[in-house]
Amino acid sequence: MRVKTPDGDRDLPALWWEDGQVHMIDQRVLPEELTFVAYDDVDAVAEAIADMVVRGAPAIGAAAAYGMALAALADDRDRGADVLAKSRPTANDLFYAIDAMEEALDAGRDPVSAARDYVDETVDRCRRIGEHGADLVEEDHRYLTHCNAGALATVDWGTALAPFRVARREGRDFFVYADETRPREQGRLTLWELQNEQIPSALIADNAAGHFMARGEIDALITGADRIAANGDVANKIGTYEKAVLADRHDIPYYVAAPVSTFDPGTPTGADIPIEERSTDELGAGIPAENPAFDVTPADLVAGVITEDGVKDPTELGD
Amino acid sequence: MRVKTPDGDRDLPALWWEDGQVHMIDQRVLPEELTFVAYDDVDAVAEAIADMVVRGAPAIGAAAAYGMALAALADDRDRGADVLAKSRPTANDLFYAIDAMEEALDAGRDPVSAARDYVDETVDRCRRIGEHGADLVEEDHRYLTHCNAGALATVDWGTALAPFRVARREGRDFFVYADETRPREQGRLTLWELQNEQIPSALIADNAAGHFMARGEIDALITGADRIAANGDVANKIGTYEKAVLADRHDIPYYVAAPVSTFDPGTPTGADIPIEERSTDELGAGIPAENPAFDVTPADLVAGVITEDGVKDPTELGD
Repeated sequence: MRVKTPDGDRDLPALWWEDGQVHMIDQRVLPEELTFVAYDDVDAVAEAIADMVVRGAPAIGAAAAYGMALAALADDRDRGADVLAKSRPTANDLFYAIDAMEEALDAGRDPVSAARDYVDETVDRCRRIGEHGADLVEEDHRYLTHCNAGALATVDWGTALAPFRVARREGRDFFVYADETRPREQGRLTLWELQNEQIPSALIADNAAGHFMARGEIDALITGADRIAANGDVANKIGTYEKAVLADRHDIPYYVAAPVSTFDPGTPTGADIPIEERSTDELGAGIPAENPAFDVTPADLVAGVITEDGVKDPTELGD
Repeated sequence: MRVKTPDGDRDLPALWWEDGQVHMIDQRVLPEELTFVAYDDVDAVAEAIADMVVRGAPAIGAAAAYGMALAALADDRDRGADVLAKSRPTANDLFYAIDAMEEALDAGRDPVSAARDYVDETVDRCRRIGEHGADLVEEDHRYLTHCNAGALATVDWGTALAPFRVARREGRDFFVYADETRPREQGRLTLWELQNEQIPSALIADNAAGHFMARGEIDALITGADRIAANGDVANKIGTYEKAVLADRHDIPYYVAAPVSTFDPGTPTGADIPIEERSTDELGAGIPAENPAFDVTPADLVAGVITEDGVKDPTELGD
């Protein structure tokens, strides 16, 4: 992704391996500050995932792959896998990455090059999602996205944002509304990415999406996904379900952009996806509150899933 | 309303007249701080309305009534009415109060006692809304409200919160979810009022309402209204429309609680209601953003309007 730095625009991923450490952009302080952190043990990586230094399902998977490499190098594989698996509960990529690394390590592969390959494949899948999805991004249309399913969430390119990146680089003009996405306000990260890519865009309160849809000012909704159940139900950031219901009322197509790794055939329906309850401090310290971090959108509200292999019906991902 | 102060619980209105001044609770710093402000000229009152020191349609009307009294005492009636009318565009009560004061002053009434009567009537209407609405608040049911349509918004009792206040004082047990209501987060005022009244309650992100509805954890939605058009369409705080659509999908009744003064027969439909666009600084200084403050919910999504005269169909308010 393009990032504005004090030394000019640079191309940077959200996290990378260098000199025996996992380096990450610290997403907790973006977009106000661009700072970097580095970790050299698996416990610190798991803590970074739990604290949302890195967030977004594919980026969590990438961090877990590097975390597994650190654990393997320290001869601490089994405990490392356990610690990582407990860092966050909802995103399927976390478990997918741990399993992929276990398999690679069992096959005798070098931990660092196995993790690097896993991450490179993640980035490549996102690039292909962008290419397939770019066909859905039309000149002068206006789009809504929720949360941040951008390069920050996926190491590079993004899932929901990849089609916009590709379409913009192909020279198309369009507009993107970014939901603020309370309580963590990942929409600010989305706006930061869109503005860095010179894509005309605006932040809106989560409450305003329905208003703009009712006024005919949104042509399609595109979000990422944290897990897709066997029946096609989609778990994604809290509020996604609200936007999907509103899109349905206004005959606005809702596309999910996600790599096939998001699909979890072992989870029969959305009701079986564990929903993380995060600290209510995210809504204000000491305030009586409830704070579910994800919700489930039923498959019938999803027009299509933009995957690295093309646009698919959500109920046919397992085929 | 009951308010916790350093000297113990007290009964206080949101604004009142004392010693030639309008006194107000400063709602910009609640719930963190309970502080009071006082104004002795109409320009300062209009500025307080625009800055949201006082907010909520009926409380804006009350502030405007006292503002008109100050203007009349200063022999500055016509200009005062103009300044007040320009302070905020959406709430019908503002214009209703200015007109009512013009009429009372034309009839030769004392400005202060005319304004006091207007405010007393506002409070009395809210108390009656509470009595009619309390019948809809059932033991062990769970309710959702959006924004703050409480005593703070109406001088006392509230509109959407009045039924909860009355039901609680009658000894009923129930639970209220308060939407945070970005960008101004008036849901924090609602939670503060509910907790002061010992009503079990929790703040939730605006994004979470759909999730709780889908899980069957919300039995009814009750909000206030800023203006109701002749056809029954309801303008209220941005996000109300989203919650109404979600309630409709889940067969959850949506009640609007509002005095008859909210009804504006001069506005044919919701599309004719001017929607205030507030500063995008409310979403963060310098960020490309759009910030509509209200939205319109079509009459067919409203199960009933709880008025001071009983529960009515939104399309029959003019009858």
